[in-house]
Amino acid sequence: MAQEASQITPRYLTGDKAGLQEFLAKFDVFLFDCDGVLWSGDHLFPGTVETLELLRNNGKQVVFVTNNSTKSRADYRKKLESLGIPSTVEEIFSSSYSSSIYISRILQLPENKRKVYVIGETGIEQELRSENVPFIGGTDPAYRRDVTPDDYKKIAAGDESIIDPEVGVVLVGLDFHMNYLKMALAYHYIRRGAVFLATNIDSTLPSSGSLFPGAGSMSAPLIMMLNKEPIALGKPSQAMMDSIEGKFKFDRSRACMVGDRANTDIRFGLEGKLGGTLGVLTGVSSKEDFVSGDVRPHAYLDKLSDLLGSE
Amino acid sequence: MAQEASQITPRYLTGDKAGLQEFLAKFDVFLFDCDGVLWSGDHLFPGTVETLELLRNNGKQVVFVTNNSTKSRADYRKKLESLGIPSTVEEIFSSSYSSSIYISRILQLPENKRKVYVIGETGIEQELRSENVPFIGGTDPAYRRDVTPDDYKKIAAGDESIIDPEVGVVLVGLDFHMNYLKMALAYHYIRRGAVFLATNIDSTLPSSGSLFPGAGSMSAPLIMMLNKEPIALGKPSQAMMDSIEGKFKFDRSRACMVGDRANTDIRFGLEGKLGGTLGVLTGVSSKEDFVSGDVRPHAYLDKLSDLLGSE
Repeated sequence: MAQEASQITPRYLTGDKAGLQEFLAKFDVFLFDCDGVLWSGDHLFPGTVETLELLRNNGKQVVFVTNNSTKSRADYRKKLESLGIPSTVEEIFSSSYSSSIYISRILQLPENKRKVYVIGETGIEQELRSENVPFIGGTDPAYRRDVTPDDYKKIAAGDESIIDPEVGVVLVGLDFHMNYLKMALAYHYIRRGAVFLATNIDSTLPSSGSLFPGAGSMSAPLIMMLNKEPIALGKPSQAMMDSIEGKFKFDRSRACMVGDRANTDIRFGLEGKLGGTLGVLTGVSSKEDFVSGDVRPHAYLDKLSDLLGSE
Repeated sequence: MAQEASQITPRYLTGDKAGLQEFLAKFDVFLFDCDGVLWSGDHLFPGTVETLELLRNNGKQVVFVTNNSTKSRADYRKKLESLGIPSTVEEIFSSSYSSSIYISRILQLPENKRKVYVIGETGIEQELRSENVPFIGGTDPAYRRDVTPDDYKKIAAGDESIIDPEVGVVLVGLDFHMNYLKMALAYHYIRRGAVFLATNIDSTLPSSGSLFPGAGSMSAPLIMMLNKEPIALGKPSQAMMDSIEGKFKFDRSRACMVGDRANTDIRFGLEGKLGGTLGVLTGVSSKEDFVSGDVRPHAYLDKLSDLLGSE
């Protein structure tokens, strides 16, 4: 796919009114990556709100797609609101929601193996509850403690006081309370046959203008120990695109993915065979990445609000 | 090296008195992997003590080589003693000691960058102290806490209340108190130029007849975030062999590595160009691994105490 994509010569649309109009007319749905596109950290880019308004006024469906697994959709809507962006929960698609849908609607788990062992924060828990998926772990304080000699023996023996025989899935997201015990339990559940899922595998998390451990860093020890990759439910995994399509029932040829990262956002749109991909230069990827990289968008802009130039 | 090694046809020496005598006569030094060779878990193999006695009585130097980084050499001697194996601290070579020697004698650190940020337990700290290497982190309770919003800002800004400008090395070993804050700090120190070292990179730790997260699992998130491998100081890294040679000044052609794992112990001896390697079938590798695997020992035994058959 990356090779096919490398055949694209991206159109530069900033300041090109006719080009912008032509581009916008092709799509009914716009999927947005958020950080680096709509805002950076806590700084809303000027014109973001007006641009979203323009799209909505022209009858376009807007979907906010985020790999952030620590927040539920409701939490994320509040975050958008705090930045001044009006939205509804229905417009938000997060990796924790995508994971919950995957578990409840796509995975065919045996009757007695339906529990999820969660590594992660409250966002995952809220979305699992919204899909009626039973789970253990997560923010339960019982797991926020040191490992004991007794734990080794009980875990190794599969003692039901610590190993729940109904766990059929391990779901790993960003967990600010990661510890040795949680890692050991996840490893043993997967060795005992549980499906290994990750909300997303971004190794880093942007914060305070720098990078910190991301959800992928929680899966990394398990990948090394098990010599096995998780099924990842965030961008650029197509499991997430399938979940989005399952919910919004859109025509892929009339949808456009907007993002700042060639390797995740643009790849996500290209591999999902969307009608269009639009890169913006307010985040990670550079003009050079878009124009001559391995993964190229159909079009790119200096910044998202350049779409206002279509009027 | 693995290809060269695959040319070896290992000699099976169990019950072969003349073969055993000939083999033993070739070496002055025997390097022993411990778990899987001398004992398994808490179970001492019958004949281990007598076999070590035989070697010592015949003037052989015995060295216990362990990737265990949580114990100091003094702790490890106590462990040997508790299993009934007489030894001296001088006969023990652990990955924490190897790391300390590497930092104090091999790394050329600038005057103002000599501190080590430690992820690990007390064994590493004791060995760093024995080499007069200054360090922070490790078992310090100040690092055993949740990450706070303030931490992100201060770490990102390089605030000296949390980021020590004198840290020039990050040393990652097995840490039963691993957490998000420690991971974030290690990442930032390495990004700021600190040397990335690992006591060892075994992904798992054998315990209670099963496997648990090992030292490599502590490095895994950093490797993923940084896209960079650490310099590993445990087997099969030759940095460990160099440290052992630095200490014991032995003739490599007159030394033999004894172990149960082809891919670590035997590889360690072969790549170190030791005169001999001896596999035992009481641990991880099978007869098939030794006889037709990629990495083959010069000779192998059903069990270590078969060496007693040389008498």
